[in-house]
Amino acid sequence: MKDTRIPLSLSDIANRLGARLEGDGERRISGLATLKDAGPEDITFLANRAYLKDLPGTRAAAVLLRPEDRDACPVTALVLDNPYLGYAELSRMLDPLINAQPSGVHATAVVAEDAVLGQDVSIGAQAVIESGVVLGDGVTIGPGSIVGADSQIGENSLLHANATVYHGVVVGKRAILHSGCVIGGDGFGFAHDGAGWRKIAQLGGVVLGDDVEVGSCSSIDRGALGDTVIGNDVKIDSQVQIAHNVHIGDHSALAGCVGIAGSTQVGRHCMLGGGVGLSGHLTICDGVQVTGMSLVTNSILEPGVYSSGTGAMENSQWRRNAVRFKQLDSIAKRVSRLERISGEKGDSGAS
Amino acid sequence: MKDTRIPLSLSDIANRLGARLEGDGERRISGLATLKDAGPEDITFLANRAYLKDLPGTRAAAVLLRPEDRDACPVTALVLDNPYLGYAELSRMLDPLINAQPSGVHATAVVAEDAVLGQDVSIGAQAVIESGVVLGDGVTIGPGSIVGADSQIGENSLLHANATVYHGVVVGKRAILHSGCVIGGDGFGFAHDGAGWRKIAQLGGVVLGDDVEVGSCSSIDRGALGDTVIGNDVKIDSQVQIAHNVHIGDHSALAGCVGIAGSTQVGRHCMLGGGVGLSGHLTICDGVQVTGMSLVTNSILEPGVYSSGTGAMENSQWRRNAVRFKQLDSIAKRVSRLERISGEKGDSGAS
Amino acid sequence: MKDTRIPLSLSDIANRLGARLEGDGERRISGLATLKDAGPEDITFLANRAYLKDLPGTRAAAVLLRPEDRDACPVTALVLDNPYLGYAELSRMLDPLINAQPSGVHATAVVAEDAVLGQDVSIGAQAVIESGVVLGDGVTIGPGSIVGADSQIGENSLLHANATVYHGVVVGKRAILHSGCVIGGDGFGFAHDGAGWRKIAQLGGVVLGDDVEVGSCSSIDRGALGDTVIGNDVKIDSQVQIAHNVHIGDHSALAGCVGIAGSTQVGRHCMLGGGVGLSGHLTICDGVQVTGMSLVTNSILEPGVYSSGTGAMENSQWRRNAVRFKQLDSIAKRVSRLERISGEKGDSGAS
Repeated sequence: MKDTRIPLSLSDIANRLGARLEGDGERRISGLATLKDAGPEDITFLANRAYLKDLPGTRAAAVLLRPEDRDACPVTALVLDNPYLGYAELSRMLDPLINAQPSGVHATAVVAEDAVLGQDVSIGAQAVIESGVVLGDGVTIGPGSIVGADSQIGENSLLHANATVYHGVVVGKRAILHSGCVIGGDGFGFAHDGAGWRKIAQLGGVVLGDDVEVGSCSSIDRGALGDTVIGNDVKIDSQVQIAHNVHIGDHSALAGCVGIAGSTQVGRHCMLGGGVGLSGHLTICDGVQVTGMSLVTNSILEPGVYSSGTGAMENSQWRRNAVRFKQLDSIAKRVSRLERISGEKGDSGAS
Repeated sequence: MKDTRIPLSLSDIANRLGARLEGDGERRISGLATLKDAGPEDITFLANRAYLKDLPGTRAAAVLLRPEDRDACPVTALVLDNPYLGYAELSRMLDPLINAQPSGVHATAVVAEDAVLGQDVSIGAQAVIESGVVLGDGVTIGPGSIVGADSQIGENSLLHANATVYHGVVVGKRAILHSGCVIGGDGFGFAHDGAGWRKIAQLGGVVLGDDVEVGSCSSIDRGALGDTVIGNDVKIDSQVQIAHNVHIGDHSALAGCVGIAGSTQVGRHCMLGGGVGLSGHLTICDGVQVTGMSLVTNSILEPGVYSSGTGAMENSQWRRNAVRFKQLDSIAKRVSRLERISGEKGDSGAS
Repeated sequence: MKDTRIPLSLSDIANRLGARLEGDGERRISGLATLKDAGPEDITFLANRAYLKDLPGTRAAAVLLRPEDRDACPVTALVLDNPYLGYAELSRMLDPLINAQPSGVHATAVVAEDAVLGQDVSIGAQAVIESGVVLGDGVTIGPGSIVGADSQIGENSLLHANATVYHGVVVGKRAILHSGCVIGGDGFGFAHDGAGWRKIAQLGGVVLGDDVEVGSCSSIDRGALGDTVIGNDVKIDSQVQIAHNVHIGDHSALAGCVGIAGSTQVGRHCMLGGGVGLSGHLTICDGVQVTGMSLVTNSILEPGVYSSGTGAMENSQWRRNAVRFKQLDSIAKRVSRLERISGEKGDSGAS
């Protein structure tokens, strides 16, 4: 992890980002920081114009910014149309993890004799690679991580420390699996025999597409019959639960603490806010956004933004209103009766 | 994990399930699949009559079904009263994990000298069994799993990879603990000394009954004084938190992301939907069901189904309604005043 | 873990707690239990006067209690002003973990050559200490735990089994990190390029102050630029998610299943109930309490208690009310119209 990178020159950065350089291209930077925090060794960026006020006073060596903000920049500018995207690219150029050299198989790792390892595979201390596993070129398995029998990890994927992949799981290329995540645990399936529960063995697997990221301590359960399927470029935050036989479409993003119950299908380009819950056996179409902590109990067949719940308020006010919620049907009926008495028709006709 | 099972004959299956075989009992199947996905090597089942329409076109070798659906079945039928239960039994017959042979103690496992191991115990690579542990006959400890000092794991229990059991925990027979779950971490107990928090050491333990399953990344905290107790045949999904000194009655089931605060007692045969939260020090009687993401802040003393919250709706509609929620007490009072003016009595009398 | 403590005498306990002893100071106790469960070898406490009724019948050897309850105590009394705080101190005196002797570095642990270990450090079996790590005096690293490159763990901190600390994390003194927790995983940051997601490398770190506790399976993500910062004496329960660049002020406590989105700042002495969700980029001032499962989407600038949501009710009643919630804006407008017709002014004037 020792940072042995040579500082990047601003002209190198401009070239790699496709930005127009205005200023001293020979200058080298060693860090990336916010407009406010950046010092003379750092590059920064202006993507959200709410921070435009911080631009004139920046101490940074250079700023990534849009053409229209160029004139307000007191230092070297790297001009491009989407500075936030430029920031993303640059962050990866500076990431010691992404740029780490392969370190081979640690002496304490346990790798099954019949496991197949590609070129430039790294396997950390105390890791376990079980029988029949296939690790693609450039795969990195963190210390203490475990890959179960017959699973496949696609090329250039990275499992951080203490991640767990069960047997029979397929992970695509360039995946990032964070510590404590578990891919392929049993789905929650039981039949009731009148007295108690009988386990339904979960015979399916999990398939993750390419460019999937799974946050720390998240769970993706294996299918009962058939697989749980996560599409390409799906981004999953920490503390998320994805139940058996869920399908998530390409390019969708799930924020922290989301829970999705069994067999629900989420479309492409969906975004689920933190703590959202989806009931089982639903269909969520492409392009749906659900705001934080909403509960979705019915399928959503039109793209758009959906919400439930009520925002926080001062507790004594909340108590009064929450009690009234229990009377809401009664209140509605009383309003209808008053309308009948007054000869007035309600605007919804609901009673 | 290599699948070396001999395909099962349909007459074997019928015998083991107590089903009436109608068709070719010599035929052997190698898999189990849904009515829609099953191919000629597979057996399938019809439990939910919503799928009856898929029966005539099935490509399966055989179908588990009820007597009344027998005539619509184009292939060999295994007739029984509860095909879903039959499916559960059959799934376990086909499960490579359940049917795996004991593999002994891996050379890299660390097993304390005074640990007591029963017959046919398997301990995976990099696992740690601390001092004073007792593992019953047929116990399997997955790679990287850790069993803390003086804990006991009952016979035929299975800890998947990277599960953690603290010291002084008792796990019953036939438990299944999934990867990343943690049994026996400290309950959340602190006393405030006026300036800050003073830790209350959590001196109790955790007792899991027989036939308990705990999903991936779930936490069951140890008691402060006395134990946290999980009854027999309790099924716990992934991402669940059970706080100190909670008691869960036999045969209850907790779906993903449930959280139960300290000292709450949940009865027998309860079912908590995904994301349900129970406050501390409550009593929930036997036979209670709580629907997904409901918050329970008072004890429930009558069996039945309970709910809270509001379902998701289109965001602009939701915004209008959620704002009104903050006015709800005021609206209710205004309705009462209108009723007094009109000489009308409200149907609830609430004001 | 073998309990080799010599039983404590009541006069020793009284001295260490600063309590006034009334009764037999020579008597020795070996355990601590509730008023109801305590037997003749145990000491107990009366902090919540709801349990005063159990005092006369106690079988305990001695009771910690307030001066005003002394006369009702049938056995030896240890009298002090805050018996709950006394219980907390005593619990730690009896905790075998806190009082364990250092055990050195286990033969199977992997410790980088350049890691710096203080005095009396213990490192468990299968643990991994990467390059550049600094472990302070008295640090204990549980079996299977991993400390990433260049991270620092302050003196007398305890990582339980299978905890994970990424690279570049700073943990203060006397921290307790429970099993399955993950400190320093990537924050959830992506830029959209029009077609899909581009990862924003998370270049910041995590800084935990002194006396921080983190529960099992909780996640604290590293900063994108700059650090995620957890203040001194912050207590975090199990299953909590703290996103990148969140700051939590000193002495705050977060109950189980809390989720805090990116860049939100929580003040000092705050208390977040179980399952609370805070949106990103908020400011929560000092002294705020939020009740269980509330959603906070706006900053809170006044100390106090805040809530959202609605409590659980019987499902058929709930269904009727939840449907009406979707009509709430319409109902409010109908009430306003009725008020205009009747010549009555609503008490809020809202329409």
